[in-house]
Amino acid sequence: MSIVERTRADAQSRAAAEPAYRDPAALRRAVRDGRFRGQTAGQAPGFVQGNLAILPRDFAADFLRFCQLNPKPCPVIGMGEPGDPALPRLGRDIDIRTDVPGYRVFRDGELAAEPADILGPWRGDLVTFVLGCSFSFEAALIEGGLRVRHIDEGKNVAMYCTNVPNAPAGPFGGTLVVSMRPFSPKDAIRAIQITSRFPNVHGAPVHFGDPAAIGIADLARPDFGDAVAIAPGEVPVFWACGVTPQQAIRAARPPLAITHQPGAMLVTDLRNSELASF
Amino acid sequence: MSIVERTRADAQSRAAAEPAYRDPAALRRAVRDGRFRGQTAGQAPGFVQGNLAILPRDFAADFLRFCQLNPKPCPVIGMGEPGDPALPRLGRDIDIRTDVPGYRVFRDGELAAEPADILGPWRGDLVTFVLGCSFSFEAALIEGGLRVRHIDEGKNVAMYCTNVPNAPAGPFGGTLVVSMRPFSPKDAIRAIQITSRFPNVHGAPVHFGDPAAIGIADLARPDFGDAVAIAPGEVPVFWACGVTPQQAIRAARPPLAITHQPGAMLVTDLRNSELASF
Repeated sequence: MSIVERTRADAQSRAAAEPAYRDPAALRRAVRDGRFRGQTAGQAPGFVQGNLAILPRDFAADFLRFCQLNPKPCPVIGMGEPGDPALPRLGRDIDIRTDVPGYRVFRDGELAAEPADILGPWRGDLVTFVLGCSFSFEAALIEGGLRVRHIDEGKNVAMYCTNVPNAPAGPFGGTLVVSMRPFSPKDAIRAIQITSRFPNVHGAPVHFGDPAAIGIADLARPDFGDAVAIAPGEVPVFWACGVTPQQAIRAARPPLAITHQPGAMLVTDLRNSELASF
Repeated sequence: MSIVERTRADAQSRAAAEPAYRDPAALRRAVRDGRFRGQTAGQAPGFVQGNLAILPRDFAADFLRFCQLNPKPCPVIGMGEPGDPALPRLGRDIDIRTDVPGYRVFRDGELAAEPADILGPWRGDLVTFVLGCSFSFEAALIEGGLRVRHIDEGKNVAMYCTNVPNAPAGPFGGTLVVSMRPFSPKDAIRAIQITSRFPNVHGAPVHFGDPAAIGIADLARPDFGDAVAIAPGEVPVFWACGVTPQQAIRAARPPLAITHQPGAMLVTDLRNSELASF
């Protein structure tokens, strides 16, 4: 099985012991040179991986405001200058046009291409946003001794659209998307404590218990990812999810928007532990 | 209505704005001089109030071990030397024999007297323990913008015996007693965050949701305190309770044990904020 074929969950649960790359800069060089594509879960363990959103300057101000109004689903961990592909605070020598192992290019809200780099569509007015992702807090949960069900089951995390409105900003709005991980109440309390330390990677849960209270009709039918088993005595615990801003961007239908392919993240030089608030 | 007649909840909800005493040392002097008896809730706001347990030296070592094995129900915030009524780390000039506004004296596990001071039964082999109480974290919850139901309803907090065994030490054992406060899931998450900062006053909850999971048959029938309303969409959240060590002491049947009367606490010079772990 090649690295490319590995699913995110598989990579997280198995490859963590033997990642192909321990150094984030080495991984980014491999991506840039065409030697690494696809899922980044399990690579460069201990380092922060980020969701990518690139927008024209005309949309960037509203999107930044959207992120500031909705920090749980949209935690900004890095932002580029217009037209500048560097992100020096996230890693030396990052070129956002070549260092992400899979891109999606949207035009007017529709998927137009999935190129290996974005040297072609890059423009002088594009602004890069990097948003924190749940890989960092899942690593902290596992280090804290908790079992994360979808990782144990070799699946992607279950994600659900809710009826919780985002605070709108310009053309960006829509509703919150959440990820769900089941825990016993005791472990849920510990998971709340652990993830509260990581506000830049979605932070504490937004809800637990009754799915209908946030507009989820059926936990067995997630809108994204895979359903997981919920054992007797366990409660579903819901975290704000990075799919939220991706949905908001598509619905805003900017003439050009670029994101990462699901699971193919920007691997930064920041350590997960640097994101801990205490 | 005199101070003495005030219930704990009434005092917390109303007298907080106008406590008779703001300075803990002044309150203790009033107690010592016979000018203040009974409930201390709402007095000396911002300062830590503690549960009292006094045991003969022969039992004190096992009791200390019991507290260390069961830190959530038994958080030791102060301890005296054998025979010494002072507690200099909790307050200047504390004399534990006179400064608590209501005592209970137990002999062989049975209530023998409720004196205004314990100058009579005091002995050279007695060891004083002061344990943190939930007043401190309830103050933090309220400062955090949460509503605490039993305070709003002018009641005592609902407390329940559970089937969760304590870790035994010598003659001390038994099962955990919990207090319950209902919250929406969103507020419960915030309450978990807030109380996690206060490990010396019971800390984070031990359970939420299904009462039967910890051996509680009927929330409407608490073992101590008053039942409170649980609104639709709310979940009961359970914290370890200071009644746990009191039950353990009575069951151990030491020849002599002295506690405070319920709600008549030792008011210390420690600030609640000093107990915050971060």
